[in-house]
This record gives sequence, structure tokens and C-alpha cells, in this order.
Amino acid sequence: MLKKLTVALSERSYPIYIGQNILTNFQSFPLKSGERVLIATNDTIAPLYLNAVEKMLEENGVKVDTVVVPDGEKYKTIETWNTILTSLLAKNHTRNSVLIALGGGVIGDVVGFAAACYQRGIRFIQVPTTLLSQVDSSVGGKTAINHPLGKNMIGAFYQPQAVVIDINCLKTLPQRELSAGLAEVIKYGIIMDQDFFNWLEQHIEDLLALEPNAMSYCIAHCCELKAKIVAADETEQDLRAILNLGHTYGHAIEAELGYGNWLHGEAISVGMLMAAQSAKLLGHFKESNINRIKQLLIRAKLPVTKPEMMSTESYITHMLRDKKVLSGKLRLVLPFEIGQVQVIDDVNQEIVLQSIELCQ
Amino acid sequence: MLKKLTVALSERSYPIYIGQNILTNFQSFPLKSGERVLIATNDTIAPLYLNAVEKMLEENGVKVDTVVVPDGEKYKTIETWNTILTSLLAKNHTRNSVLIALGGGVIGDVVGFAAACYQRGIRFIQVPTTLLSQVDSSVGGKTAINHPLGKNMIGAFYQPQAVVIDINCLKTLPQRELSAGLAEVIKYGIIMDQDFFNWLEQHIEDLLALEPNAMSYCIAHCCELKAKIVAADETEQDLRAILNLGHTYGHAIEAELGYGNWLHGEAISVGMLMAAQSAKLLGHFKESNINRIKQLLIRAKLPVTKPEMMSTESYITHMLRDKKVLSGKLRLVLPFEIGQVQVIDDVNQEIVLQSIELCQ
Ligand SMILES: NC(=O)c1ccc[n+]([C@@H]2O[C@H](COP(=O)([O-])OP(=O)(O)OC[C@H]3O[C@@H](n4cnc5c(N)ncnc54)[C@H](O)[C@@H]3O)[C@@H](O)[C@H]2O)c1
Ligand SMILES: NC(=O)c1ccc[n+]([C@@H]2O[C@H](COP(=O)([O-])OP(=O)(O)OC[C@H]3O[C@@H](n4cnc5c(N)ncnc54)[C@H](O)[C@@H]3O)[C@@H](O)[C@H]2O)c1
Ligand SMILES: [Zn+2]
Ligand SMILES: [Zn+2]
Repeated sequence: MLKKLTVALSERSYPIYIGQNILTNFQSFPLKSGERVLIATNDTIAPLYLNAVEKMLEENGVKVDTVVVPDGEKYKTIETWNTILTSLLAKNHTRNSVLIALGGGVIGDVVGFAAACYQRGIRFIQVPTTLLSQVDSSVGGKTAINHPLGKNMIGAFYQPQAVVIDINCLKTLPQRELSAGLAEVIKYGIIMDQDFFNWLEQHIEDLLALEPNAMSYCIAHCCELKAKIVAADETEQDLRAILNLGHTYGHAIEAELGYGNWLHGEAISVGMLMAAQSAKLLGHFKESNINRIKQLLIRAKLPVTKPEMMSTESYITHMLRDKKVLSGKLRLVLPFEIGQVQVIDDVNQEIVLQSIELCQ
Repeated sequence: MLKKLTVALSERSYPIYIGQNILTNFQSFPLKSGERVLIATNDTIAPLYLNAVEKMLEENGVKVDTVVVPDGEKYKTIETWNTILTSLLAKNHTRNSVLIALGGGVIGDVVGFAAACYQRGIRFIQVPTTLLSQVDSSVGGKTAINHPLGKNMIGAFYQPQAVVIDINCLKTLPQRELSAGLAEVIKYGIIMDQDFFNWLEQHIEDLLALEPNAMSYCIAHCCELKAKIVAADETEQDLRAILNLGHTYGHAIEAELGYGNWLHGEAISVGMLMAAQSAKLLGHFKESNINRIKQLLIRAKLPVTKPEMMSTESYITHMLRDKKVLSGKLRLVLPFEIGQVQVIDDVNQEIVLQSIELCQ
């Protein structure tokens, strides 16, 4: 079972392959015998998948080099990016070489940015191995690294040649990471697709159990939804903003607790509920819908109450600093229906405080 | 006197302004009152021009920050690029800020690459202050930094919003640097424009004397020629290669002597003569044309004989390593007429050795 989607973005379009064990299926890689690749991955993923991919490519006549960097968001840095570039140079890779990013969103972002910059751009293939990277970061062409003064501040828009999504990789993914990915999945339902939200209510346990049909349908659908938003946004600046549902609240949690203590998806889970509460207080969203969202998040094994030790006031401080906030006014994405959101400028801080209190 | 050219490249086109004292003419900058800029320059150029540009922009309501990096090709590094990015972040510059590159090709390349990467790309304005950067690096959208394992190995294609060429800046440029720029000017005549070569034979002393009409005509014409090649090359890979006339030989000189001992333009001067000799030995080019080129280079105060201490054999070693060389075969751009060149694959090494010997 191999699904193929095509993401059509401006000049370039590229295929997304979704299936089981396609990591070791040469057909899903746009490569030819005799070509050279560098596979870049991290030290958690290397022992799990690197050998298999390397062997399969070599058996098909591809010349493979590898580079393994340390695991973690804190290594999404100029240094790691430079390590990948140095590896390409040390092994005399030319403009015709291909970079393969084997890993989650961190690897995808830093390796994608290395591909964008090596000799002013070489081909690259994304092999996302976390649910979050399969449904979110692999579509849209954003690549980036962090700077001590800001997350994702250095990067490029750069499209891969292909995205290879092997759902079997999710078997080794820690359950917390799987659930964190589901938070973004549920987000797509809330922001733009009521039918998909209904479907998730029927299949969330299948997804947690990695049932292959459910999982590949889910991933394909999320990729399509994101592609639709990204493609439309080339004209309409605001549309992409809806992807930030729950993120302004969630970023406050991540920033306060230090990145990495709560996973991004966990913070977004609670953040979406806070957004829903704000919408309700403003008279835009029904209590019964809040409960539907909350129940689904609970079933997805995601947190639905704010971190205990974090004061309500500290949210506002962080939220006013968020780059989505325009000049001191809280500009928030709020749900109006399941499947429909709006960007609201100048949300009253009192409302925000109350909605945060309601999530405990 | 203000000349305006428009460079039309794929999606984006941008203006090149050429004139005297336009560095302090707000009209030549696509900026509005209230906007924020960061001017990046080096410690040689800052004392000469930074204050004047800063003052003019501030008088027009632009909010100006500045960053000064050390002068020299050896600082065209990841560290300098990071210094510029850090400066943008430390001063809270957003996606709407504009980077201004004030300097020669080194500043243009590194600052342009910073603009390409800051928050995935911000606007930038090139203010080239050397003749080489005015006629060559400001057109084409190539940005880059060096890596210890190779020159210009990390970079991006990224177009400026505008190029502001103030020919009065050339008054402070050391004469060797001016002549080095003229080597690239003469190159344009040889590779594609016999009439322009004839014009140069009549006006080379005017250019050395910085006569404003001659200089602005010359710069505008070179920008147009380069834009023509770059625009055509988006389909035709080989056309851009003609810009490398003399460069494979010249790079051997630069590499052997260590970058910076001979200026790039000086090495290219001798390199073009070597190419002409190779062409003559292959029966493609007339002795009388070699003499015309040589006389023009001499009048431009450029070297026409190879560095004394460099053995003829050492050229071949370097030339075989040059990235324009395909799998051990010497692939060279050779003149067939003044104003016409061809790319010749598999040039006999014996011919190359002989032509180098003829340049002493
Ligand atoms: N480019 C975009 O559009 C975009 C969108 C969203 C997020 N992001 C970025 O993505 C990053 C987060 O991505 P993530 O959630 O995938 O985190 P991650 O890449 O850090 O992966 C999470 C953890 O799971 C491990 N892992 C990955 N695959 C595994 C597997 N199959 N089996 C076992 N362990 C595995 C990783 O090594 C890591 O420890 C952030 O840096 C974020 O900025 C980018
Ligand atoms: N991007 C491209 O397409 C492209 C094309 C050709 C060359 N380049 C790059 O350009 C660089 C060479 O550029 P360059 O020749 O301008 O060298 P440069 O930038 O090093 O400038 C030469 C010297 O002149 C000084 N200087 C500059 N303007 C001056 C002025 N008005 N008065 C006094 N001093 C001044 C500089 O500080 C420096 O010391 C190389 O790094 C090369 O790779 C890029
Ligand atoms: Zn997210
Ligand atoms: Zn050159």
C-alpha cells in the first residue's frame, strides 16, 4: 500500500509518498544508480533506521555517505548546520549530490536549511520519522535553525524533491511524541475541517494503535490540508495564521517552562482549549464544542489543564512578546465552529486571563 | 546625472541606479520614512561613507542601525554572517526591516546571504563601492560566504531590492583595486561585445581617471551585459560559463600564491591572455587579437606576465581541481574573436602548458 500525493506550490511541485516500509523501497526515492547522497540523521534515529536505508540505496547503486548529529532541539544550531555542510565538503559532494533528512522536525529543518545553502542549493529528500514532522513540517518548505536570541530566526524557504513518509517508523516513536503529533492533527480538524474532526472522534484509538489504514489516511489528509493553506497564502497573508490556533497560548507555556519540558504538541493541546475558552467568553463558541475538543484531546493522551506552577499573569507577559502579537494588542486565532476559525485583533486581556483560569 | 537600468530576472525585477553622489540621494533608495534599516559595512569603508549615508537616511525619517565588520576576504565567513544576524536580532529587527550592504564584493556577498536567511529572507539594498562589485557581483543575485574547505561554498540566490552605484566612491578606491575591476570590464568586451572592446580601447585612460561620463556608461553597459547572460542562463546552462574566461587559469594563480597576494582581477588579466594563447595554439584565435588584448590590459595597469616563482606544471594541478573542470578533462572558455568565445571540452594539457609558457 503506497499512497502518492502531489504538493503543487508555485514553480515547483513534488510528491509525498506515504506507506509502510517504504523507507526501504527504492521506488519512493527520486534517485538513480550512480548518484551520490549524504544521509543526515541524529544519534537516536541512526541505530534504528540508518543502516536499512543506507543498504537499500547502495544495493540500488547509489553512493551513500552519512553524518550523525546529536539529538535535540538544542542542537538545531548554526554549529550542527555547519557540521552537515562540512561533511558535504569533506566528502567532495558537488551540486549534483542529494541530501536526505532522516528524522523528526529538528532534523528536517536543519538539514533542509543545509540543502538550501550548500553551493547555493542542492536537491534534498525529507524522510520525516515523527508524526509531527509527517503531518506538519514536511509540507510548506520552511527550513530553519535557532539562534540564541530567537527560535527559527535563520532559515530559508526551500522545497524538497520528495517526502517519504514511512508510517512504520512511528512504531519506535515514544508515545508522548505520538500524542504531541496528534495535537497538530486535531488542530487541522478544528481550524478547517469538521468532517475530519468527526472522523478523528471515531478513529483516535486506531491512530494511537498505529492502525495502518487509519494512520495513512490521516497523514495524507493533513498534508493535503496544509498544502492547501500554504498554496493559498502566497496571496493571502492571513490564511496561514490559522495554523497558529492555540500557539500563542502554547508558546507561553513552552517559554515559561523552558523548551523541552512540555513538548510543543502538549502545550498546543492546552493552548487550543484556552483559545476555545476565550472564544466562548466572547460569545463566539459553544460550551458543548469545548467539551468535544477536550474529550478528543484526553483520548489522544494529551494534557488539558495548564501546568500547575505557572501563574495566569505570566501567560500575558509571554503572549505580548509573541511575534504574532501586533503592537501590544493580543491578536488571536479563535474557533467559531468546529472546522472554522477567525483571527481576532485586540482581544481583551481580561478575557484571556479568565480563559486561562478556566483550564485548570 | 542619474542613470536607471532595470534588471528583469524571473519573478523579480529591480532597478540599478548609477550616478555621482547618489549615496546621499534618498531617491535612489526604495525606502520610506518610518522604516528600519541595518547598514552593514567594514572598517575600511565605515570611516569614509557610513556617516553620510546614515545621516541622509535619518534626515528622511528612516531608523538606522549599523554594524561594522572587519575588512577582508578572510572575514567572508560564517562568523561574520552570524555577527550581522546577531545584530539584527539584538536590535529586534523584524521581517519588514531592510539590510543595506555598503562595500565591495565581500560585503555584498556576506550581507546578501544574511538578508537571504534572516527570518527566511528580508529586503536588501546593495551599495557596491568597488568597480568589481559595481560591474560584476551586484548583478546576478549570487550571495555567498567561504568555508575553510572551499570558497563561496555556502550561499543563496537572492536578489536585492535595488542597487545603488555611486561612481564617486571610486575616488577613494586604491588604484590596484580599480585596475582589478577593469580586468572584468575588459572581459565583457572579449566574451561578447566587440564594439564595447573598441570603445574601451578609446576610453581606458578616461576610466582610470574616473571621468564621470565614461565611467557611468561603462558600468551601465557591463551591468546590462551581465544581466543578459544571467537571464538567458535560466534555461541554457552553458551560457553563464563564458563569464569564466581566464578564470580557470587565474584561479590557479590565486590558489598557488595564496588568496590576496594577487588580486582576483590581476590573476584574471593574465588568465585571459593564457586563454588567448591556448586558443591561438589550437588555431582559433589570431596573434594580432592577442596583442590588442595585451595592450589594453597594460594600459589598464594590469599584469600580463605570469608570477615569476610559479612553475608551469603547478598550474595544471590547480586547474584539474577547479570545479569547472569535468572529470580530469580541461574544459576551458576560449576566445575565437574579440567579442566571441566558446567552451571547449577536453583541451590538450600540452597546449595549456605551452600557452602558460608564452605568458612570461
Ligand atoms: N518547518 C516547519 O514548517 C515546521 C513545522 C512545525 C515544527 N517544526 C519544527 O519541528 C521541530 C519539532 O519536530 P519533532 O516534534 O519531530 O521533534 P524532534 O525532531 O525533536 O523529534 C522528537 C524526538 O523523537 C525522536 N525520534 C524521531 N523519530 C523517531 C522514531 N521514528 N523513533 C524513535 N524516536 C524518534 C527524535 O530523535 C527526538 O528525540 C521543532 O524544531 C519545530 O520548530 C517545523
Ligand atoms: N556575487 C557575485 O556574483 C560575485 C562576482 C564576483 C566576485 N564576487 C566576490 O566579490 C569579492 C571581491 O570583491 P571586491 O573586489 O569588491 O573586493 P573587496 O570587497 O574585498 O574590496 C576590495 C578592497 O577595497 C576596499 N574598498 C571597497 N570600497 C572602497 C572604496 N570606495 N574606497 C576605498 N576602499 C574601498 C575594501 O574594504 C577592500 O579592502 C570576492 O569575495 C568574490 O568572491 C562575487
Ligand atoms: Zn505547532
Ligand atoms: Zn571574476
